[in-house]
Amino acid sequence: MSTFPPIEEQMALLRRATADLVDEDQLRAKLARAEETGEPLVVKTGFDPTAPDLHLGHTVLMRKMRHFQQLGHRVIFLVGDLTAMIGDPSGRKATRPQLSKEEVDANAETYKQQAFHILDPDLTEIDSNSRWLSELGTEGIIRLAGSYTLARMLERDDFRTRLANNQPISIHELLYPLTQAYDSIFLEADVELGGHDQIFNLLVGRQLMKERGLDPQVVITVPLLVGTDGVEKMSKSVGNAIALEDLPKEIYGRTMSIPDELMWNWCIHLTEQPEAEIESRKAAVASGELHPKEVKMELARQLVAQFHDDDAATEAEREFESVFRGGGVPDDVPSHAAVQGKTIVAIIADAGLATSKSEARRLIRQGGVSIDGEKVADPFLVPDKRDEPYLVKVGKRRFARLEIA
Amino acid sequence: MSTFPPIEEQMALLRRATADLVDEDQLRAKLARAEETGEPLVVKTGFDPTAPDLHLGHTVLMRKMRHFQQLGHRVIFLVGDLTAMIGDPSGRKATRPQLSKEEVDANAETYKQQAFHILDPDLTEIDSNSRWLSELGTEGIIRLAGSYTLARMLERDDFRTRLANNQPISIHELLYPLTQAYDSIFLEADVELGGHDQIFNLLVGRQLMKERGLDPQVVITVPLLVGTDGVEKMSKSVGNAIALEDLPKEIYGRTMSIPDELMWNWCIHLTEQPEAEIESRKAAVASGELHPKEVKMELARQLVAQFHDDDAATEAEREFESVFRGGGVPDDVPSHAAVQGKTIVAIIADAGLATSKSEARRLIRQGGVSIDGEKVADPFLVPDKRDEPYLVKVGKRRFARLEIA
Repeated sequence: MSTFPPIEEQMALLRRATADLVDEDQLRAKLARAEETGEPLVVKTGFDPTAPDLHLGHTVLMRKMRHFQQLGHRVIFLVGDLTAMIGDPSGRKATRPQLSKEEVDANAETYKQQAFHILDPDLTEIDSNSRWLSELGTEGIIRLAGSYTLARMLERDDFRTRLANNQPISIHELLYPLTQAYDSIFLEADVELGGHDQIFNLLVGRQLMKERGLDPQVVITVPLLVGTDGVEKMSKSVGNAIALEDLPKEIYGRTMSIPDELMWNWCIHLTEQPEAEIESRKAAVASGELHPKEVKMELARQLVAQFHDDDAATEAEREFESVFRGGGVPDDVPSHAAVQGKTIVAIIADAGLATSKSEARRLIRQGGVSIDGEKVADPFLVPDKRDEPYLVKVGKRRFARLEIA
Repeated sequence: MSTFPPIEEQMALLRRATADLVDEDQLRAKLARAEETGEPLVVKTGFDPTAPDLHLGHTVLMRKMRHFQQLGHRVIFLVGDLTAMIGDPSGRKATRPQLSKEEVDANAETYKQQAFHILDPDLTEIDSNSRWLSELGTEGIIRLAGSYTLARMLERDDFRTRLANNQPISIHELLYPLTQAYDSIFLEADVELGGHDQIFNLLVGRQLMKERGLDPQVVITVPLLVGTDGVEKMSKSVGNAIALEDLPKEIYGRTMSIPDELMWNWCIHLTEQPEAEIESRKAAVASGELHPKEVKMELARQLVAQFHDDDAATEAEREFESVFRGGGVPDDVPSHAAVQGKTIVAIIADAGLATSKSEARRLIRQGGVSIDGEKVADPFLVPDKRDEPYLVKVGKRRFARLEIA
C-alpha cells in the first residue's frame, strides 16, 4: 500500500511539457482512486527496439515516465519485441530488416541502459509484448482485427494521406495499432505515454479498452523535440541530434550552438528546472538583466551532467570557454594527412569534418571554413605542400591539423 | 502415376459453364505437365461451414469439382473451419455467431454428405485450414498481412463501394483474402475453384503464389445460379431456392415452375447433358418440333434422380402429371384445422401454405388462391364452419384440407 503526493501536486508535474492529455478529469479520478486504494497507477510506454541509438529527443518521453516514478506509480517499459522480429516487409525500396530474437534482446538492452540515465532502474518494470501477443495466435489476431473498422483506421491522417497519394500502406500496418491496444488491454494500463506522433495509436487503445468494458487508459503524449538547428525535429539522419552516448564536450558544444529561442523549450523538456524558475530567467533575459549565453551554459552543463557527471560538465565547460571565449584551439585537434592535388572540398569530406563533399561545398559557400584563420572562398582551392600542418576549422567547433604529403 | 484424357478433351469439359478462367493457356500447360509427370493437378475449393443447408446453386461449383475428379485430378474439399470459429464480429446489427469446434465439425459433416450427391466420396480429399493457419500464429499472420497493400485490397469492388458509402469494413475482413491465399500456398494448389463472387479472393491467391515464386494457381469460377423466379440468384432467404434435402415432388414441381428461358441455363449448370444435345433441343423448341414442357420435365426428372433416385423421379413425375395435366388433387393433401372467425389470409399463413400473411395477401390479389375450386378475391373472407373440409389451393401445387372447428 503506497501513499502519494496531493493530487493537484501530481497533476502539476504530470501536465508539464505534454502535447496531449486525454483527459485531465479522468487522470484526476484515477489519481484519486490510487490515493483511496493505495494501488499505484499502471503507466505503460512502448519502445520499438529497432533503433537503440538514443538522442535527447527520446529523453523527453522518459522524463515523463520518470515523473510517474517520482510520484510512486508503476512504470512499465514495454519492449515491442514481437513486432520488431516481424520487421516491416512493406515498401519495396526500403525493406526494414527482420530482427532475430538475439538482435532484439541486444537492442532492448542498449535501449534500457541508455534509458536508465533518466529512469530509476529499480523502479522500472521491463516487459515484452511477445509474452501475450504470441499467445493470441492466428485466431486471436483475426478476432482482434474484427474489433475495428477500416474507416476508423483511416481517420489516422497519415494513412488517409498515403492512400490518397497512392503511397503503399501494408495491411499489417493496420494491425499494429490494434496489437498496441491489446498491450494496454492485457496490462490494464491506467495511462499510456508516447510521442505526439503516436496519438492515434494510443487513442485506439483507449477506445478498445472502453469497448471491452475496461476503464480506458489516459493518454499522454510529449512533443517531438526540435533539434539543434531550431527547425526540424531532432533526428540522427537530419544531423541535428545530440546522442546520449556523445562525449561531454560534444553535448556541451552542440547545446551551445542551438538558437536562443529554442533553449527555453529545451529547459522545459530536457531538465527538471522548475517552470517558475524558467519563466523568471526568461523575464531576466528579456529585460537585459541576464545574458542568454548564461542560460544556455547552465542548460549545457545540466545536460552533460545527466548523461555523464558533474566533473565532466565542469571540464566540458572549461574547454568550451578556452576555445570560444579565448578564440583558441582545443587541446586535442586530430591530424589528417592528404596527398597533394586534392581540393579543399575533398579534404574536408575525407577528414570527416563534413559528412559529404556537398556539405563541404555548402559550408564553404556559407563562410564556415577557414585555413590558418583565413576564410576559404574557393571550393576548388588546392592546398600546397608545406612542412608545417595547416589548421583547418570547419563550423564553430571542428578542427583538423592538415598535412599535405 | 495416373493417365489422363487428351488435353483438349479435358479443356472442353473444364471450360463448360464457367464464369472466369484465368487463364486458359496456363491451365493447358498444367494439364500437359500432369500428362508428362503422371501427377494429377491439385484442385482446391474452400467451403465456409456456416450454412450447411445446401441448394441447387451450390451444386454448380461441386459439379465443376466433379469434372476434375472425372478427369483424374486431386480434388480437395477444404473446410474453412478456422475462420468459421472466429465468426464475423463486424456489423453491430447482424453479428454472425462464433461457432464452436463441434458446430463447425457438424456443419462440415452435413455439407459433405450433401456434397456427395455430386462428388465421388472416394476421390474427395477433405482438409481443414485450421491445420496450417493455426500454425501461423501471431507472427505469421502479421507477416502475411505485410505481403499485401491496402490499395490492392481496395481494388475489390465491394470494399471500395462499402468504404465510399460509409458502410463498415472490419479490419479482419482484409485478412480473409490473405488467409485464403495462404491456403493455396500451403497446398500448392494448381487450380482454385469458387463462385464468381469469389473471383477477387481467388486472384489474391494467384498473386501471392506468384510473389513467393510458386507456379500461380489457375482460377476458375462458376456463375451464381438464377433461382426459380428466373430473376434473382438462388437463395434460401429470397425463397427461390430448391434445397438438396427437398422431397422429390418438391424438386420436381418447383423445377417445372421455372421460366422456360431459364431451363437451358439450368441444363448447362445442373446436369451433364452434352452441350451439343442441349443446343439441338433448343433448336427443336425454337422450330416448334419440341414442346418446352418436355425439356423441362426431362430436367426435373434428372434433378430428382440426382438427389434421390430414378424411382423417386418416376413417382414425382407421375404425381405431377396427375395433379396438373389431369387438374386433380394429389393423394396426400395435408389437413389443417382452424378455429372459426379467422380470415383466409391468417389461415393460409398458419397452415404453411404461404410464408407470411403478406405473402398470402399477395397471392390472393394475384388470383392464386381458391377454395373448392373457386378463386378467392377477398383477403378478409372468413370461412364458415361446416362438416366437410374445404379444399384450399394456393399457387399451383399447394393444397390443404381445411377443417373449421
